[in-house]
Amino acid sequence: MIRAGIIGATGYAGAELVRLLLRHPEVEIRWFGSRSYIDKKYASVYQNMFTLVEDVCKADDLEELARQVDVIFTATPQGFLGSILNMNILGEAKVVDLSADYRIKDVAVYEKWYQIQHKSPQFIPEAVYGLCEVNREAVRTARLVANPGCYTTCSILTAYPLVKEGLIDPDTLIIDAKSGTSGAGRGAKVNNLFCEVNENMKAYGVTTHRHTPEIEEQLGYAAGRQITVTFTPHLAPMNRGILATEYASLVRRPDGTYPTREDVREVYERYYHEEYFVRVLEDGVCPETRWVEGSNFLDVNFVIEERTGRIIMMGALDNLVKGAAGQAVQNMNLMFGLQENMGLELVPVFP
Amino acid sequence: MIRAGIIGATGYAGAELVRLLLRHPEVEIRWFGSRSYIDKKYASVYQNMFTLVEDVCKADDLEELARQVDVIFTATPQGFLGSILNMNILGEAKVVDLSADYRIKDVAVYEKWYQIQHKSPQFIPEAVYGLCEVNREAVRTARLVANPGCYTTCSILTAYPLVKEGLIDPDTLIIDAKSGTSGAGRGAKVNNLFCEVNENMKAYGVTTHRHTPEIEEQLGYAAGRQITVTFTPHLAPMNRGILATEYASLVRRPDGTYPTREDVREVYERYYHEEYFVRVLEDGVCPETRWVEGSNFLDVNFVIEERTGRIIMMGALDNLVKGAAGQAVQNMNLMFGLQENMGLELVPVFP
Amino acid sequence: MIRAGIIGATGYAGAELVRLLLRHPEVEIRWFGSRSYIDKKYASVYQNMFTLVEDVCKADDLEELARQVDVIFTATPQGFLGSILNMNILGEAKVVDLSADYRIKDVAVYEKWYQIQHKSPQFIPEAVYGLCEVNREAVRTARLVANPGCYTTCSILTAYPLVKEGLIDPDTLIIDAKSGTSGAGRGAKVNNLFCEVNENMKAYGVTTHRHTPEIEEQLGYAAGRQITVTFTPHLAPMNRGILATEYASLVRRPDGTYPTREDVREVYERYYHEEYFVRVLEDGVCPETRWVEGSNFLDVNFVIEERTGRIIMMGALDNLVKGAAGQAVQNMNLMFGLQENMGLELVPVFP
Amino acid sequence: MIRAGIIGATGYAGAELVRLLLRHPEVEIRWFGSRSYIDKKYASVYQNMFTLVEDVCKADDLEELARQVDVIFTATPQGFLGSILNMNILGEAKVVDLSADYRIKDVAVYEKWYQIQHKSPQFIPEAVYGLCEVNREAVRTARLVANPGCYTTCSILTAYPLVKEGLIDPDTLIIDAKSGTSGAGRGAKVNNLFCEVNENMKAYGVTTHRHTPEIEEQLGYAAGRQITVTFTPHLAPMNRGILATEYASLVRRPDGTYPTREDVREVYERYYHEEYFVRVLEDGVCPETRWVEGSNFLDVNFVIEERTGRIIMMGALDNLVKGAAGQAVQNMNLMFGLQENMGLELVPVFP
Repeated sequence: MIRAGIIGATGYAGAELVRLLLRHPEVEIRWFGSRSYIDKKYASVYQNMFTLVEDVCKADDLEELARQVDVIFTATPQGFLGSILNMNILGEAKVVDLSADYRIKDVAVYEKWYQIQHKSPQFIPEAVYGLCEVNREAVRTARLVANPGCYTTCSILTAYPLVKEGLIDPDTLIIDAKSGTSGAGRGAKVNNLFCEVNENMKAYGVTTHRHTPEIEEQLGYAAGRQITVTFTPHLAPMNRGILATEYASLVRRPDGTYPTREDVREVYERYYHEEYFVRVLEDGVCPETRWVEGSNFLDVNFVIEERTGRIIMMGALDNLVKGAAGQAVQNMNLMFGLQENMGLELVPVFP
Repeated sequence: MIRAGIIGATGYAGAELVRLLLRHPEVEIRWFGSRSYIDKKYASVYQNMFTLVEDVCKADDLEELARQVDVIFTATPQGFLGSILNMNILGEAKVVDLSADYRIKDVAVYEKWYQIQHKSPQFIPEAVYGLCEVNREAVRTARLVANPGCYTTCSILTAYPLVKEGLIDPDTLIIDAKSGTSGAGRGAKVNNLFCEVNENMKAYGVTTHRHTPEIEEQLGYAAGRQITVTFTPHLAPMNRGILATEYASLVRRPDGTYPTREDVREVYERYYHEEYFVRVLEDGVCPETRWVEGSNFLDVNFVIEERTGRIIMMGALDNLVKGAAGQAVQNMNLMFGLQENMGLELVPVFP
Repeated sequence: MIRAGIIGATGYAGAELVRLLLRHPEVEIRWFGSRSYIDKKYASVYQNMFTLVEDVCKADDLEELARQVDVIFTATPQGFLGSILNMNILGEAKVVDLSADYRIKDVAVYEKWYQIQHKSPQFIPEAVYGLCEVNREAVRTARLVANPGCYTTCSILTAYPLVKEGLIDPDTLIIDAKSGTSGAGRGAKVNNLFCEVNENMKAYGVTTHRHTPEIEEQLGYAAGRQITVTFTPHLAPMNRGILATEYASLVRRPDGTYPTREDVREVYERYYHEEYFVRVLEDGVCPETRWVEGSNFLDVNFVIEERTGRIIMMGALDNLVKGAAGQAVQNMNLMFGLQENMGLELVPVFP
Repeated sequence: MIRAGIIGATGYAGAELVRLLLRHPEVEIRWFGSRSYIDKKYASVYQNMFTLVEDVCKADDLEELARQVDVIFTATPQGFLGSILNMNILGEAKVVDLSADYRIKDVAVYEKWYQIQHKSPQFIPEAVYGLCEVNREAVRTARLVANPGCYTTCSILTAYPLVKEGLIDPDTLIIDAKSGTSGAGRGAKVNNLFCEVNENMKAYGVTTHRHTPEIEEQLGYAAGRQITVTFTPHLAPMNRGILATEYASLVRRPDGTYPTREDVREVYERYYHEEYFVRVLEDGVCPETRWVEGSNFLDVNFVIEERTGRIIMMGALDNLVKGAAGQAVQNMNLMFGLQENMGLELVPVFP
């Protein structure tokens, strides 16, 4: 059995890790870290775990934790792991970091968008960006995995094959994303109160959201050059789910024509046909968040608009699963040589 | 492997059966019955099943189905199974009926509350009321199980130990229940449209809801005599979950005093301590539907009101799981000699 | 024009007062009090008021306020007005208090349920309980009105005629109430976050909710003696609305029979026929919160259950209007000799 | 008093017309037309109108209606008015059509996108597109007004000043719109059931939504040439509200620089400063649907993204008010020489 510890176990992503790892056949959770609830029963914070978890919450002593477990998940605010990670820890346990600290290779970009000074940039080079469908082989041998963000997982994978194959012009890419409110975390803020979120749609972080450089970096690798995209997140009155609607101009082929629906479909199929977690939907079926809720699936599809020469790509995932905890477990499975979807064969819950 | 068939697989309860049975280690679904979608791909009706279910929907040919499978689940409108069940079917396959057709022993009561003429009352005597926590042994040997209603499962189990032990006067029992909208089914009715349900609370079926006689019959067995209760269901703007708030007068003990909190708790613990699916919460913690969502748990607790001599009992479950499909699988497990919680160790999904 | 000041203008009830008073033909708001947002533009706290309100928030200087206005509304936490009210204030301006400080005549009861020491019990005797439909004449001449609570307005008016006329036994009264989340206020608490409230039903404050003694006092006046009731509030995943489902035993008439539906209806009609804001629905129509949202209406109706000798009464109102700000304006209208429904002829907003 | 008739009074837009006209000081509703509910009491279909409306629903006899009223509102399916309008009707009463029948000047475009043959194209030339902020003067003298669509009102007005002034390249315009579910109407369809819409986000009508040509035509007038835009509507789990997020490339000025925030703001202010219903928000404040709910306001704002040379424009309105019934009343006010905001000074309802 793999012994696992979770730092930030009482946030929504941390709690989702608990939900998934409790039913993972090869994992045992040994440490429920929560700075705010030290010595409180975990199940009294998350009553859904009553009778399932008997443990109390522990402090964030990463060095001690590293000695006791095989893998550490950090579902913590930005900057936390960066300020505390060291060689001892990495020498003792593998780390899957759900924060953004090691996602961006250029530390200056990280510091500019996050407004945080990075305290351990020396670990950035070895960190593997844990987007399994793209970096599978690197993840297998990593000891530090930067688990991708929720918006970024959805945004990148939805466009990745078309960028990689040059079917769309990445500089025309506009991503309009809608997220459930669990993405905002469990902090007590007026803006996240029920009455403020319910019956409302709003954009936020327009032109400034921190997931922007992460998308640009990863799709830039696919494009083979630096790219710039527009990314606008929105808050939707629902618990879970991200829907990304992505717009880009198709690249004309040498004969001046645009790629056809069949061309585009062929590319998506080629990239995702063997991916358990990415479902390319049938023609005419738009991804919807309800169809992936509670699961690690990402549903994608597209529509070509001949009038404008654009393509509309759509992707839907559960921000707490494929967008956070599920992908973290998927990374762990790869890091420990387990079957990639072990413990993750979750059937989406509907309604 | 147990071969299973589902009639009514495209209703919400039927779809939940699919979700659960797909991950049950000892079951294989062989028949997705749906009168409305014959020959359509099941996954095109429930896109969450895309890549997980390749089958198309089939007709309601129960005799043919019985020859092909070991167990039949009927998640059908009231009256359907009653009109079609026969000895051939029962001779070939076990049946778990999620409708009300065989729940009530007195056929006159059934016909009065349901306004349906029962077409096969001859099977009522052998049908076992599948409330596992109460009728476990009878279920094990049954070939026809009447799976309890959603409201009834919640209402009965929440009060059962206190009625059985005589701590409350069952004729003072008032059950005020609140249900999510999936309980209303997937039929296209104006009253169940999003804009009609959202931002609304209402009572319905006041004094006439069909689950009333079912509660009275079962709690009557516990009381050892016929009883009459008040039951008022309400529709709440959420997908899943039933919360039953139940009021009753405590019965004074010979010395004129009321049972104490410790007395009541001891009774609950005695009845439910070994039940995997019934969780008696800690003092002061009220059941909430969010803590059981997606799982087969029923959470119960109570508060004594000394000023009035009443007790307020509360129970919460997921109407599609413990209130329908999950309990049906629990019954199936018992009928086939499997571990009772096999395939049902679902961690509640929150948020 | 009546000059009005609001203390606590940035809470939900305070903001609803602003919404109503802005369109009241005889009122001008002169003071937007908000301790938390002093000197901030009111419309930056409530963007819905952008271009409609230019004022900035002011401090809670009640004495100065009293000199500047004709009426003060206090939508403040319990204990605030009690700690600050004095003869100078009452000498200068009329006061409508939306808190509980002057609702309960027996200060010991107040202090026990609220766990607050009352700092100005000397004003309790003169305070009028502002349930207009019951205390209309007293309100007209009051200078201090205790505006009833949201649950209490709904609970009391729904049962009032039957208690007053002796048709039900008040000691059997059980009130099961469901409220939207705006009733919990705008404080930043984890329990009121969107993801905690959404997709959830729960009871809270079971046997201990502070509106209990208020209901008991007022219905006790109707009964002509002290009574004890059971009151259980629930939180529903919606913004506005309270639905109270109330259970009581009918009182047999001298000939041993129960009052009929016609008898009960006649009583309701007698009490409420001339009340603009109380709508006794037609037979068979249950009150629903969606039909009163945004308005000052209270919808009531009932069903008799002959099997048990009980009656189920139901009432629905908008907790922020008839349950708070609307009733406060109704009281103000009476206090200033205006038409009672002036500024309150709001058509319910649906959907 | 203006006598008004409504055809389609039991749809959501029709019911909103009733809500608004009931409180309009110069209007009396004389005809509640509803094909589905003929002879039923209107208030039994919309219980919120109980005690406010005593009328029963009438048939769709437009000629008779025209003789009885001064203005007819048709809140009917596409094609209805087109198939029935004639000179007699237009000779007797003014008509405000909430359907799309007379919105598009090129009948071939209408017939292509709506897949309906237009039965009375002869009235198209005289019909005025009732976007008051743009066509105010023409509306004043019109006898047939084509009330704009909900998405189109939001989409057009949000971009209009920048298109008109040439600050953005209209062919780069991409509109990503999110709507509450009341926009889908009150028809009983599985896709609009509570459990299907709740906890879900989806795009629909991708590249084919009928509001596209309407947006293109109107913004084309502003641009002074034919334009092509991408428009993608989404369904959000809320009752009311549309948020349009619009993306376009800024046009460089002769000196090669982009317009600044001040430049853009100046243009918005110039166009909308005197418009009561269009609120240009302060810098950094994003429009949100909650702030306009229940009102006739459209809130707009923008953010410039220098990295990409794009501008993100945002607009929010209530689809049933400014997007339908409110704008219809605004048009009526103009047509009858009343103050434009008469009966429409609705304060947004929050929460």
